[in-house]
Amino acid sequence: LFLKKIKGKLFVWLQKTKRSCGLFVAEGVKVINEFLEASLQLHHLFTLNTAQELFPNADPLKKTTISSNELEQLSFLTTPQKAIAVFEIPQLNKISNQGLQVALDNVSDPGNLGTIIRLCDWFGIEHLICSENTVDCYNPKVVQATMGSLTRVQITYTPLKKYLKETQLPIFGTFMEGKNIYKTRFPEEGIIIMGNEANGISHEITTVVTHKISIPRFGKLQQTESLNVATATAILLSEFNR
Amino acid sequence: LFLKKIKGKLFVWLQKTKRSCGLFVAEGVKVINEFLEASLQLHHLFTLNTAQELFPNADPLKKTTISSNELEQLSFLTTPQKAIAVFEIPQLNKISNQGLQVALDNVSDPGNLGTIIRLCDWFGIEHLICSENTVDCYNPKVVQATMGSLTRVQITYTPLKKYLKETQLPIFGTFMEGKNIYKTRFPEEGIIIMGNEANGISHEITTVVTHKISIPRFGKLQQTESLNVATATAILLSEFNR
Repeated sequence: LFLKKIKGKLFVWLQKTKRSCGLFVAEGVKVINEFLEASLQLHHLFTLNTAQELFPNADPLKKTTISSNELEQLSFLTTPQKAIAVFEIPQLNKISNQGLQVALDNVSDPGNLGTIIRLCDWFGIEHLICSENTVDCYNPKVVQATMGSLTRVQITYTPLKKYLKETQLPIFGTFMEGKNIYKTRFPEEGIIIMGNEANGISHEITTVVTHKISIPRFGKLQQTESLNVATATAILLSEFNR
Repeated sequence: LFLKKIKGKLFVWLQKTKRSCGLFVAEGVKVINEFLEASLQLHHLFTLNTAQELFPNADPLKKTTISSNELEQLSFLTTPQKAIAVFEIPQLNKISNQGLQVALDNVSDPGNLGTIIRLCDWFGIEHLICSENTVDCYNPKVVQATMGSLTRVQITYTPLKKYLKETQLPIFGTFMEGKNIYKTRFPEEGIIIMGNEANGISHEITTVVTHKISIPRFGKLQQTESLNVATATAILLSEFNR
């Protein structure tokens, strides 16, 4: 019965693809344990009988054993793992207006968002700012792709233009006509804007960019259309940090 | 009837995930036209009636109009595009043993291979060497992800260790204990090895690496497990080319 109730919640949540119910789903022993170790509030954990012992940090009262058939119905993965957990979405800290930040202007692909979160973690970026139309970071695909990184990077959804207008930090965005990144000296503090996969940085946000930069293309034919947003983020973060 | 024959061929090809029949599949108007413009040999083109006029460079004798139902059956995509084409896999040029090359040691994810091919194109890398267990670059997912880049980067599958033992070029691989890439001066010629998603560079290949390097991690907690292989490739190619 409880399982049915949760399932209902999950489906509602998936349909809205929004965080209105304040919960998110994580799957697999490793991923779930990463979240438990990061002290996220467990809402409920469903495990196969064989995987019961693999979660020493989970409150036993919040554990339910399910059959592999039930797991298959609950799972968002094509190949379900041994367990699926529902966590409460943590409260956000306030954004500190300092250091190096990454801001996403309507990034729509969960895989790209996941990769960018891992990159932020790797490069010690504590704040990732997302426009309100950026794909939800608690989308199951993002959660699976980022694994533990999701617990170490603060992600804030906010009206992006308003946020950028109020900051004192320099704002960097990549544009064809921008200054070669290999010839630019980057400050230690600033905001790097990354745009949507198909449309790049929106017109609205372009108006608040203070520094236009570009990643030079080295191919002879110069026909490559563009770099993937996640690989472009990797190159920029590497340049800012070197 | 012809459609059935082709469909049979496609399925055989998909099952083997190998290039034994010498053909590969591309879908969508833009992608197909990129290959036509690159003068790849068209084997056959199937289009919806509405998309017929969109391929000015395709031999009319090799065009068949199909229904959207038939397209759905042929397509490898969850959302089929307006056309699907079968091309002949081009003959490979011999690998020139100079310049900067990227070599993949059992990269297994089609999305990662696709991203790496686009990166090679962007950074002017003409030769991508793949170990024989690296995912097939004519896998439909790779073809769709790379779009035109697949026509501009020479990709060769070869026994990797043998190839590396015979080259005179310096061989770079990333290892935890390697030298910080931001403190390394890179030559203009060399081979960059990228390893498998789960296991990194194999033991066998490690023995022929001449320069161990590393991408430093900047996070305070230093818990990020690793960078995705495609984003690591982006950072390395950026450093080699800067």
